[in-house]
Amino acid sequence: MTLRRSRDVPTLVAAARDGDPRAVARLISLVEDGDEALPRIAAALAPHTGAAAVVGLTGAPGVGKSTTTNELVTAFRKAGRRVGVLAVDPSSPFTGGAILGDRVRMQDHATDPGVYIRSMSSRGHLGGLSAATPQAARVLAAAGCDPVVIETVGVGQAEVEIAGLADTTVVLLAPGMGDAIQAAKAGVLEIADIFVVNKADRDGADATYRDIQGMIGLGTRAPGDWRPRVVRCVAARGEGIADLVTAIDEHRADLAASGALTRRRIRRAEAEIEAIALGVLRARMQDLHSGDSLTTLAREVAEGRTDPYAAADALLAQLS
Amino acid sequence: MTLRRSRDVPTLVAAARDGDPRAVARLISLVEDGDEALPRIAAALAPHTGAAAVVGLTGAPGVGKSTTTNELVTAFRKAGRRVGVLAVDPSSPFTGGAILGDRVRMQDHATDPGVYIRSMSSRGHLGGLSAATPQAARVLAAAGCDPVVIETVGVGQAEVEIAGLADTTVVLLAPGMGDAIQAAKAGVLEIADIFVVNKADRDGADATYRDIQGMIGLGTRAPGDWRPRVVRCVAARGEGIADLVTAIDEHRADLAASGALTRRRIRRAEAEIEAIALGVLRARMQDLHSGDSLTTLAREVAEGRTDPYAAADALLAQLS
Repeated sequence: MTLRRSRDVPTLVAAARDGDPRAVARLISLVEDGDEALPRIAAALAPHTGAAAVVGLTGAPGVGKSTTTNELVTAFRKAGRRVGVLAVDPSSPFTGGAILGDRVRMQDHATDPGVYIRSMSSRGHLGGLSAATPQAARVLAAAGCDPVVIETVGVGQAEVEIAGLADTTVVLLAPGMGDAIQAAKAGVLEIADIFVVNKADRDGADATYRDIQGMIGLGTRAPGDWRPRVVRCVAARGEGIADLVTAIDEHRADLAASGALTRRRIRRAEAEIEAIALGVLRARMQDLHSGDSLTTLAREVAEGRTDPYAAADALLAQLS
Repeated sequence: MTLRRSRDVPTLVAAARDGDPRAVARLISLVEDGDEALPRIAAALAPHTGAAAVVGLTGAPGVGKSTTTNELVTAFRKAGRRVGVLAVDPSSPFTGGAILGDRVRMQDHATDPGVYIRSMSSRGHLGGLSAATPQAARVLAAAGCDPVVIETVGVGQAEVEIAGLADTTVVLLAPGMGDAIQAAKAGVLEIADIFVVNKADRDGADATYRDIQGMIGLGTRAPGDWRPRVVRCVAARGEGIADLVTAIDEHRADLAASGALTRRRIRRAEAEIEAIALGVLRARMQDLHSGDSLTTLAREVAEGRTDPYAAADALLAQLS
């Protein structure tokens, strides 16, 4: 999978920009594997990646994320937009396009050249979801996708991380899932730009809708700040999806008009740069670990000839 | 709490070596708080810390760790040895000597100048248990304690971490605690040098004893490697404690004779140096975060003028 020749990178990026699905797939694989060509890929992509709207979509298992994503893709395609989907599974060690190719829900779009779909695990070389995913999203943006949808199951830190990657974060809920509401109360309120009450034809949907509206009413916002929308959907029948598309587009327009889009993207880039830099430092530390110097220093500490802080200083002096 | 004058450090360390309990307490507080004097304290302690045996004691809640530690202290004191105890609570945000002062179980030793007891939380500035605890153990060793007992509840990673800090790791079990045995099977077997079946007068103690012996029999050991001992105790009545002391002393002698003691201590120092070095790097990164440079780089990334890898390189160049 490693790129042998430096000139492969511009060739691949040019092919991806022309919409070649194999070039797109190849670039995402290289990004995900943390290939040594990654910095060159990132440099080649940088001028072509700013325009796409990045939409994060998260929610507890069973709320209908896959179905909703599928219907969103259909709606965006009808509007003539090229769409990229990154389905990130924070718990799975599996990765690559093959798994998603089997996913029934995406069969609708399997033969559509205007849709790129990719499953990713979050085991990244430099910090999981927060490291490989933004670069993969840039590949899709460079290939002309707008929006790029990042879908992930809302467990643990993943849903907060996804909010850190997206321009617009959509949180899905379903009626009768008390846990989902509890989780929402605990922290999702701060990350959601749009709530979807999916399965809105079920008992309890009105109560869920009211609960969310009540939570939003209690939240503190500065004047002019976006007030999270709540959209009712029955994704399995395509109902409400047009409203969701409208809410996504309006949030995006609001971000752009207020200047918040730029601020969000700068904060995102800060986190990304830091994660990469820490990863580089850890890798350098690993190199020292595999050499003699750490063991030599550790022996001196064990024998009381130096202390661990002085030894750490000596180690750090070798890093640069 | 901060030390104002550099000459305070040698004075404090000299007082601690003379057995002044207030100097010992002060030093541990400075260590635990990550005081800026920490590197100087570590340097002053280094020549005086190698001799003490460090005993880790862990087990699930309810197996009788506190009672066992108390009885161990009594036994070591009868042998004329000065004893230090660090009770590490990995879940508690509380810290300091005050809490432990209230602990009924240690009232036996509250007025004994040959016993130092200290509660620590594991929220450390540089990586929790693995960072502050070894320095606190060095303070106690410099004060003439031998052994230094580190007691922690066996939940999550804490029991594996404690094994990384101790010369001898003692794992407590009690009859009828199926979970404890399951946990033991999962990973404790690799870290335990000595098992204690506490509450050995209860139903099921023989079965627990046989289970553990069976597990040990299945483990793989190189010829000459220590075979974990299993000791039956009823700590609440002091029964079996003499056998536990014997097992601890024999394990220590075995480690010293085989050269494993030196190897363990070098590995420990490696982990400690690395943790400190990573902490220093994170702190430097924080400094960059609070300045303008990261934001400036992030803005260039957000605008497509550079990529995050080039930006991370630029950031790292500023670290050294």
